[in-house]
Amino acid sequence: MTRREHDLLGTKEIPADVYWGVHTARAVENFQVTGMTIGRNPYLVRGLACVKEAAALTNHELGLLDQARMEAIVEACREIRAGALHDQFVVDDIQGGAGTSTNMNANEVIANRALELLGQRKGDYAHLHPNDHVNLSQSTNDAYPTAINIALIEAIDDLAASMTILKTAFDRKAREFAALIKLGRTQLQDAVPMTLGQEFRTFVVMLGEDQARLLEAASLLHEINLGATAIGTGLNAPLGYAARVCDHLARLTGRPLVTATDLIEATQDPGAFVHLSGVLKRVAVKLSKTCNDLRLLSSGPRAGIGEITLPAVQAGSSIMPGKINPVIPEMVNQVAYAVIGNDVTITMAAEAGQLQLNAFEPIIARALSQSISQLSAACRILAERCIDGIQANPLIMAKRVEESIGLATALNPLIGYHAATEVAQEALASGRTVPEVVLERGHLSVAQLEQALSPEHLANMGAVMNGEPDPRQST
Amino acid sequence: MTRREHDLLGTKEIPADVYWGVHTARAVENFQVTGMTIGRNPYLVRGLACVKEAAALTNHELGLLDQARMEAIVEACREIRAGALHDQFVVDDIQGGAGTSTNMNANEVIANRALELLGQRKGDYAHLHPNDHVNLSQSTNDAYPTAINIALIEAIDDLAASMTILKTAFDRKAREFAALIKLGRTQLQDAVPMTLGQEFRTFVVMLGEDQARLLEAASLLHEINLGATAIGTGLNAPLGYAARVCDHLARLTGRPLVTATDLIEATQDPGAFVHLSGVLKRVAVKLSKTCNDLRLLSSGPRAGIGEITLPAVQAGSSIMPGKINPVIPEMVNQVAYAVIGNDVTITMAAEAGQLQLNAFEPIIARALSQSISQLSAACRILAERCIDGIQANPLIMAKRVEESIGLATALNPLIGYHAATEVAQEALASGRTVPEVVLERGHLSVAQLEQALSPEHLANMGAVMNGEPDPRQST
Amino acid sequence: MTRREHDLLGTKEIPADVYWGVHTARAVENFQVTGMTIGRNPYLVRGLACVKEAAALTNHELGLLDQARMEAIVEACREIRAGALHDQFVVDDIQGGAGTSTNMNANEVIANRALELLGQRKGDYAHLHPNDHVNLSQSTNDAYPTAINIALIEAIDDLAASMTILKTAFDRKAREFAALIKLGRTQLQDAVPMTLGQEFRTFVVMLGEDQARLLEAASLLHEINLGATAIGTGLNAPLGYAARVCDHLARLTGRPLVTATDLIEATQDPGAFVHLSGVLKRVAVKLSKTCNDLRLLSSGPRAGIGEITLPAVQAGSSIMPGKINPVIPEMVNQVAYAVIGNDVTITMAAEAGQLQLNAFEPIIARALSQSISQLSAACRILAERCIDGIQANPLIMAKRVEESIGLATALNPLIGYHAATEVAQEALASGRTVPEVVLERGHLSVAQLEQALSPEHLANMGAVMNGEPDPRQST
Amino acid sequence: MTRREHDLLGTKEIPADVYWGVHTARAVENFQVTGMTIGRNPYLVRGLACVKEAAALTNHELGLLDQARMEAIVEACREIRAGALHDQFVVDDIQGGAGTSTNMNANEVIANRALELLGQRKGDYAHLHPNDHVNLSQSTNDAYPTAINIALIEAIDDLAASMTILKTAFDRKAREFAALIKLGRTQLQDAVPMTLGQEFRTFVVMLGEDQARLLEAASLLHEINLGATAIGTGLNAPLGYAARVCDHLARLTGRPLVTATDLIEATQDPGAFVHLSGVLKRVAVKLSKTCNDLRLLSSGPRAGIGEITLPAVQAGSSIMPGKINPVIPEMVNQVAYAVIGNDVTITMAAEAGQLQLNAFEPIIARALSQSISQLSAACRILAERCIDGIQANPLIMAKRVEESIGLATALNPLIGYHAATEVAQEALASGRTVPEVVLERGHLSVAQLEQALSPEHLANMGAVMNGEPDPRQST
Repeated sequence: MTRREHDLLGTKEIPADVYWGVHTARAVENFQVTGMTIGRNPYLVRGLACVKEAAALTNHELGLLDQARMEAIVEACREIRAGALHDQFVVDDIQGGAGTSTNMNANEVIANRALELLGQRKGDYAHLHPNDHVNLSQSTNDAYPTAINIALIEAIDDLAASMTILKTAFDRKAREFAALIKLGRTQLQDAVPMTLGQEFRTFVVMLGEDQARLLEAASLLHEINLGATAIGTGLNAPLGYAARVCDHLARLTGRPLVTATDLIEATQDPGAFVHLSGVLKRVAVKLSKTCNDLRLLSSGPRAGIGEITLPAVQAGSSIMPGKINPVIPEMVNQVAYAVIGNDVTITMAAEAGQLQLNAFEPIIARALSQSISQLSAACRILAERCIDGIQANPLIMAKRVEESIGLATALNPLIGYHAATEVAQEALASGRTVPEVVLERGHLSVAQLEQALSPEHLANMGAVMNGEPDPRQST
Repeated sequence: MTRREHDLLGTKEIPADVYWGVHTARAVENFQVTGMTIGRNPYLVRGLACVKEAAALTNHELGLLDQARMEAIVEACREIRAGALHDQFVVDDIQGGAGTSTNMNANEVIANRALELLGQRKGDYAHLHPNDHVNLSQSTNDAYPTAINIALIEAIDDLAASMTILKTAFDRKAREFAALIKLGRTQLQDAVPMTLGQEFRTFVVMLGEDQARLLEAASLLHEINLGATAIGTGLNAPLGYAARVCDHLARLTGRPLVTATDLIEATQDPGAFVHLSGVLKRVAVKLSKTCNDLRLLSSGPRAGIGEITLPAVQAGSSIMPGKINPVIPEMVNQVAYAVIGNDVTITMAAEAGQLQLNAFEPIIARALSQSISQLSAACRILAERCIDGIQANPLIMAKRVEESIGLATALNPLIGYHAATEVAQEALASGRTVPEVVLERGHLSVAQLEQALSPEHLANMGAVMNGEPDPRQST
Repeated sequence: MTRREHDLLGTKEIPADVYWGVHTARAVENFQVTGMTIGRNPYLVRGLACVKEAAALTNHELGLLDQARMEAIVEACREIRAGALHDQFVVDDIQGGAGTSTNMNANEVIANRALELLGQRKGDYAHLHPNDHVNLSQSTNDAYPTAINIALIEAIDDLAASMTILKTAFDRKAREFAALIKLGRTQLQDAVPMTLGQEFRTFVVMLGEDQARLLEAASLLHEINLGATAIGTGLNAPLGYAARVCDHLARLTGRPLVTATDLIEATQDPGAFVHLSGVLKRVAVKLSKTCNDLRLLSSGPRAGIGEITLPAVQAGSSIMPGKINPVIPEMVNQVAYAVIGNDVTITMAAEAGQLQLNAFEPIIARALSQSISQLSAACRILAERCIDGIQANPLIMAKRVEESIGLATALNPLIGYHAATEVAQEALASGRTVPEVVLERGHLSVAQLEQALSPEHLANMGAVMNGEPDPRQST
Repeated sequence: MTRREHDLLGTKEIPADVYWGVHTARAVENFQVTGMTIGRNPYLVRGLACVKEAAALTNHELGLLDQARMEAIVEACREIRAGALHDQFVVDDIQGGAGTSTNMNANEVIANRALELLGQRKGDYAHLHPNDHVNLSQSTNDAYPTAINIALIEAIDDLAASMTILKTAFDRKAREFAALIKLGRTQLQDAVPMTLGQEFRTFVVMLGEDQARLLEAASLLHEINLGATAIGTGLNAPLGYAARVCDHLARLTGRPLVTATDLIEATQDPGAFVHLSGVLKRVAVKLSKTCNDLRLLSSGPRAGIGEITLPAVQAGSSIMPGKINPVIPEMVNQVAYAVIGNDVTITMAAEAGQLQLNAFEPIIARALSQSISQLSAACRILAERCIDGIQANPLIMAKRVEESIGLATALNPLIGYHAATEVAQEALASGRTVPEVVLERGHLSVAQLEQALSPEHLANMGAVMNGEPDPRQST
């Protein structure tokens, strides 16, 4: 069973039961690229429905849309925002046309659902038209990027929540490990002592800073260009439309949206997307470094650093009995590499914009959405399937501090850099410990030595354990 | 209905009807990242089945696997290669563990299907075991990259075929447009004449060169490391195994596979993947440049260059009546940006390998597979939905040649660079054509001028039209 | 003439007249990589001198450094800050060791200049020692990144000033071109009218937004880790050191510097560098897009868009007489590509940090410094050698608006989308203008048509010319 | 003292003693971007001189250039090729104009030196002209890329030689360490035994493969477009010119150069540069991974893996006595990151080419040249200052093999995977070794155990030590 729809290219048979129409059908035929449809991104579908609902309300207020059509469109949008009909958004993620196909997919689905609500048949556009009523006072060039902004704002909320979960998991471990002395390392070489709690605390601080940058980036997305229509001059949008539609959209989404001051600039400028991508890349870089550290610290179990043990979540090898691998951090590393690659994709797409429009927003939206959702999944999984189960190996850590040549650093103020260097060299050459050599050479008494090498002194523990500024730094 | 399976972490309920087992179940729980499963990549699933079939045959020949189990495994693999059970490959595309989860997913599905074929129940591994029999003489670290190689070789064949389709489409147009004189442009500024056929011929030549590089890159993938087991020392693989299994695999795939000379190096080195990605990036760069040109040349229809008209494949705008956009080239641009981003992802994943293994092959496999399949789709769609329907606008092109200041270049040998410069400047300042100024100044007769500006001379047409070396270049 | 200096590796002859010493000499031998020395970056050299001066003052206040040595060190630092001895900073830009060689180069030059000021011979470190006195209470791991931060803050000021120059140049042109009607383009296809002033205004707005983001990124650099010493625990830095040295440094630089709350995190985290690089990339993307637009709009002179003419700054071709090329925008494009490449370099270097330190800060500092200085040069050159001299071609622009099919968009509200589409199609097919077809078909009177197509209406000129919100957008 | 020169923009004072002229002077004023001049790249300067010499010889043969001028030009070119006048190539590395400024810089320097040789004064172009004689039958668009190709071919030779030095250094160490058993690691977790020689052998093999790919990429550069002139149609180049000039250039450079079949395609296509950059990135990725491994293996000296000791080449720390850092590998990592960033720069520049020319070749040439020279320096320094001095720590390695749980893998064929897993788990839990547990449980006799765990068996030593295929792999 089919129905017939028409566009500039002619007539086309459309399956009778689908909510999309001829424009969507053309786009589906044109863009068989990724196998992923826009309907797989619920944030985007809901963002589109929000925009269309706000436009219908505004058009009604301004006398351009009658009550019945407005109510039908609004109801259709609310159903979609509640999760309905997402399977009707069937256009491929990668598409030409600057998002026109996505916008028309939304216009058609909403129109046909609204027709049903009005008691009409799907495709009977004389009663309610995808372009003339659902898309009224809009162009793809303002409706689509506004929907993307809303989708990203919501998705970032989810990522920020996942980062909080991870931050909390690291914080618990930082407290649990607060008293465990270990050797710090610079350039993979033994340096000076610290605590394992201090080491885990850095992950907490880092995530907090990244979260702050992420929310700053999200704030840029609150500036929308709805009302710009084709190129930002607002041609064919009625007087007062931009301000009213922004109010409606802000209310519907619960977000403090504002209309861009220069709509011509806003319509062609993907700067906020580039900025967001840069921040997501930053998050990825830091997560990847964190996971590199976790993998280093848990290397072994016997021929590596082995200061911590990650929880086993699956068997590590089909050939090596008992091997457990750091599979969760490895997954996070790979997500980070994907996000960093996406940043290059987004950069190129943004740079390729020409004159009054960037035609490549679909790939930007796809890449940003993937980066956010994968980072969010990575943070949650890392927290729940790895960090929460980490165990410390305090005996190994303590033994390494004791053996460390790096202890000689702490003796500088007491015996001088020159003598300390000689102690370090003799200890290394002879296989003995720094305290042994110091005592043998008579540089210090046992009491002096114990004080100089006390954990509190070496790792400056008090300060960091409480999450407060180092007391030694305040006069 | 469930069955119970066991691994190092304990016992787990598995849905009774699925072919995967406890290792896959753990991995599915651990890696909810992309929503894309490895089963969505048929090349990889078939590659895995080829490896397992070749291993079973070899193990049987070497006396390690009995006839009945071998036949059951081989039959299961053949079914999978024919398209069955791909929905049972349910692990996420992005996974930690260096591919162990993918390998175990294959081992379990094949084992359970083989158990069925043997008349046993799924999960009854005492009769036929995923590790002990399906994975026999293998490690993930040799079976998985070998399967990836096979998958990529097959996928590249498809891409090369798509490139041929596109090359042929361009070639047809190059012939069709062979006699159409137009102005060449350097740095977007009017330069000297050429033919539209010559312009389209460059796309043919370019695709041919890229194809040659692609096939070179594919040839590197024919070196496999099967027989390396865990780290390349071949521990636990029987004498003669590597050579025999390679023979079987070559026969099964119909590809001239060879075993790497140094299996330790081959097991840790993703160099061939990095190389392939670099070549895919090259293909993307050239395709993107080609599409940029198509969009420039078809800009307008009235306020742009407008020398060609792309076929309309969908309505261009919801607000601007009659607007047609170059949506197909725009889609190709975006695929190119994605491929270029994937190259960075692959680069980082390759660089991050440590010691005897690269743990990040899953993201490499995912990114390469996406790049190849999207490029292949882009080439076919570009050929069929854009190039085939391109129409030239010869009147516009001819008029621009006639008006062009660049014609003065052809006068250099006749009237000198200095006089030619003065002609060019006067023509530009006065709004007249170069021939008009030349004649007025009496530099040349009408006959001389006509010869100097003949299409054959200006565009060197004879040479390029026949695809032969320029006759003026041979002594 | 040489002097002899010693380190762990033994004794080495140093040219008698140079200010650097044995550590610098080793580094110069080890790192012959780029041919560029750190002394070529005056911001960095001055940043190092600021850090050393602040440290000397603080060490003196805390009783660790006597008056004479302090004064000599401070005087040496002030000379360097005033421009002296930069040629003594001879270590290669790319160096291993996390900046230790740069830090020691500074320590040695300052020590030897201070020795001179004290009436001692260079190399006579018993009187004043590079490590014991100049580097007192510091490690490379806090002194070096702090110096980089200061260097970048100063360099960003220069870039921001260059962006202001460019913004002002665009603003002048936006005002000059405010009344010139032209056709806007989306996806390189004719869209709807706007003014050239509106088009240039977008470049102003864009630069303003980028500047705001740049200054936000710079603010992150004001958090320093001086006082952290080796790994952030502050080992061997005296009580109160961090706060006091930050105060001194803030005073010396005139910048509101603050000490990081968690010095362990701050010592290992290049997050602010990654963030800055992301913003520089954003600036590059937008500048490149702007230059792409300038090259498109000035394409021709006869066979392109040709709406503006860029000033000639050099002959364009050795073979084509009279050809002028857009060489300044082309230069800016290339700087943008370099900055975008640098971002990937910085990303990888940041991700590769391990445990308590990122050893790859030298390449980060090099890449950031190059990106900033090249962008700054590009902005100034673009303003002064291109934008200031741009001329509009109003006749060409007006003619294209008149001929444009896009005018049909403005008729939608008057005659409906369906009729407007038919008008557009007939105009395109017949080679006539939209007004001609409309009048012929009797859709509108001449008066109606003139009003509908008035420049004020089409381009929404009033609003954008004043840089104010669109009056049509306010109720 | 100045002389006066003229161009399209008017008259300009040129310092009397310089060899460059008015075109160079304009370019120097226009492009103050990087502070690096093209004269800093001797390969490029010599490449330009080769092209100009070959052109002069060909023009003379074809009757376009008289004997005296030809001889003067040829002599000037030979002087430059021998190293003279490189300081006269003063244009900035980053320049607009598609290389025209570089080409004109060469034309002017050669013309003025030739004028001197003819007994004329510099600037007296009536006797010998930069454009009319030095640039005769050429355009920037063929002369410049041909010079780049020649420059890159020569530079790659140097890089390949450096890679051979590094490969040889690794090979020496692979032989030296051939008998040293150690534990292999996958995913940073203890795996199965191998030898340190095998580990170093992988670096040899890897470098060999990369070298092969590099030489393949270099072969693509042997196709030149000289004779194409402005856009590839050969306009204004005489009959037979392209073939003859290629012959001359091949003879002068000693390289098997060939003229591209389709000169229009060749003139616009930077495909060979993109390909080369991809291969350089591959080299960088592998070198970086190698250096990561060296840093991991030498981590410690006491709290890390510590299986090898890198030679000390400078003191590691200003605060930690006796600390030695892996500064040479760290430098190589940073070079690799720079090369990878350059690849993105080159990719973007290549993609941005439009129609008949890529205007962005200057940044491509700069980035490629830097990548090659820095990689070459990195390889030599790594060989001479690091690899040659590496020492193994066999006692540490042997102890770790003995303690390793991974030994259980070798017992699979003897006692079964299930029993081996139990052995591994008990050994890990109890802190004992695998042999202890095996003997206690009575799985094997002492003799059986010794055979199973013999170095020859575990590491498959015989095969790899001889660089031959594994004997166990051949039937």
